[in-house]
Amino acid sequence: MTDSDRRWLNAAALLAERGRPLSRPNPAVGCVLVKDGRVVGRGWTQPGGRPHAEAMALAAAGAAARGASAYVTLEPCAHQSERGPCCARLLREAGVARVVVGCGDPDPRTAGDGVAMLREAGIAVVEAECAASRASLAGYLMRAESGRPFVTLKLALSIDGCIATASGESQWITGAEARAHTHLERARHDAILVGGGTLRTDRPRLDVRLPGLGTRSPERWVLSRSPAPDGWHRLSDPADLSPLASAQYLFVEGGAQTAAAFLAADHVDRLLVYCAPIVIGGGRPGIADIGLGALAGAHGRWKFADRRMLGADTLEVYARTR
Amino acid sequence: MTDSDRRWLNAAALLAERGRPLSRPNPAVGCVLVKDGRVVGRGWTQPGGRPHAEAMALAAAGAAARGASAYVTLEPCAHQSERGPCCARLLREAGVARVVVGCGDPDPRTAGDGVAMLREAGIAVVEAECAASRASLAGYLMRAESGRPFVTLKLALSIDGCIATASGESQWITGAEARAHTHLERARHDAILVGGGTLRTDRPRLDVRLPGLGTRSPERWVLSRSPAPDGWHRLSDPADLSPLASAQYLFVEGGAQTAAAFLAADHVDRLLVYCAPIVIGGGRPGIADIGLGALAGAHGRWKFADRRMLGADTLEVYARTR
Repeated sequence: MTDSDRRWLNAAALLAERGRPLSRPNPAVGCVLVKDGRVVGRGWTQPGGRPHAEAMALAAAGAAARGASAYVTLEPCAHQSERGPCCARLLREAGVARVVVGCGDPDPRTAGDGVAMLREAGIAVVEAECAASRASLAGYLMRAESGRPFVTLKLALSIDGCIATASGESQWITGAEARAHTHLERARHDAILVGGGTLRTDRPRLDVRLPGLGTRSPERWVLSRSPAPDGWHRLSDPADLSPLASAQYLFVEGGAQTAAAFLAADHVDRLLVYCAPIVIGGGRPGIADIGLGALAGAHGRWKFADRRMLGADTLEVYARTR
Repeated sequence: MTDSDRRWLNAAALLAERGRPLSRPNPAVGCVLVKDGRVVGRGWTQPGGRPHAEAMALAAAGAAARGASAYVTLEPCAHQSERGPCCARLLREAGVARVVVGCGDPDPRTAGDGVAMLREAGIAVVEAECAASRASLAGYLMRAESGRPFVTLKLALSIDGCIATASGESQWITGAEARAHTHLERARHDAILVGGGTLRTDRPRLDVRLPGLGTRSPERWVLSRSPAPDGWHRLSDPADLSPLASAQYLFVEGGAQTAAAFLAADHVDRLLVYCAPIVIGGGRPGIADIGLGALAGAHGRWKFADRRMLGADTLEVYARTR
């Protein structure tokens, strides 16, 4: 794979983001068709999972697809569906000359058959190990490999790690930009969860209040032993995420007990820490007891992944090392 | 002041750092002499406060100082001392053509007289408001203006703001690079302080264990109502820093009660937060109660100032807004 291949794959991974999370139960895939160094077609998985990214890109390219290279974040599917022909066949029929695949598809109906079908048709295939492709498929891959959604835990903390004053005042720790960013993150998730205490105390709406994204509010879940109120789903144990059967991405928003319960179950894949430039001092900590014994057990589990300023606040992203 | 002037002043401010903190009781000043775009002399305040930065730079430049521009972080002194002539006179006698001053000297023996003496001698003087100069003189200016040292509070925290596990295990939160950086910061301070609890529990040496900087260990202070052990000084109340009579820079290393006491007294000017990529969960918080009432009172007091990675850890610096 050349540097140029990698750049086109990264571009495809960015396109894939447009399908997240509406593509469920299908993966959110991105596809770029390139001929003579020019993009002749782009596509991403449409809401509900069809058409696929390759079908969209091929439709956009038309006859220009002949002889082009296709960059796809996920291995093209090899299984015919009642909703349309498989993508490996579409690529062959369009006369694509070369396919660069960012990540193999663990779906047993494809799992290598997509690549094999392309090669049988005389198409050159590069199987890349593309980090951006894998990252854009995190929820789909987690479902396929571990049977659960990819879980992000969000925290909004003071410098000293508090989510509220000692008396419980918590609105607001972070500023308007950070809170808007949280709404954007909500829109990237299928499901959102808070603890029963937070639900009773704060009565959060947990919806997406950003212009144009109002319809993207995720399914609301509560971690509780009591029945969930109307419009809410209930999870009773963070160690068993099977009730979240269709979700690829779960967003956990707190409070401290819920955060701790997910961490103790080792069911957090990504930490999103919004840190405000304030000191509370003796306030309520953001994460309750997670059953850590020795300090050594805390090291090596998280890796700094990304950071940005949001107004006066800092967003820091940590990824679980596995 | 031109962009070029600002760059030379910034260079002088970096030189000034070499005199910190050994220049006490004098300010740590930096001086650059520039002629025809070339540096012809550099100097900084020597240990004990003499020779001054200007005297060092003029000695280095010799005859080349004639017609040069002098960039000095602090207004040249106007008062003769038994330890040598004043710098305004030295600059005049050396035939310097122009002096750019980063910051006026609040010392009543100078306080504008240095600039006046230069102008009377026909030397062009630019009185700049140079942030880098002021920052490099933070301790001196705080002493002159508020009668106390510039106070840095250091915290080594987990992502969730803890300094130890619930059982008190605290070695180590951060990695080797962050701990080495703490030693470097110690070497930049006149005095270092911990609380009585930390002294009894950890028996910290609080010295500088970096090659070549072993002699730079600051004076050790303990915040306590009991007498200080041998080799230690005692402070009884963070609201009254007068016992630290000669220190320009005080480094507060904890623990949580001591951090809170200094914050409650509003005697912290700079926060140095070493954040490790670990989650402790239900551990010991880094800052105890600071008497914050409403959350609104926490906002607007701190401004993000700087950040760097130290191995896997992040150092974040916040400055008190005043």
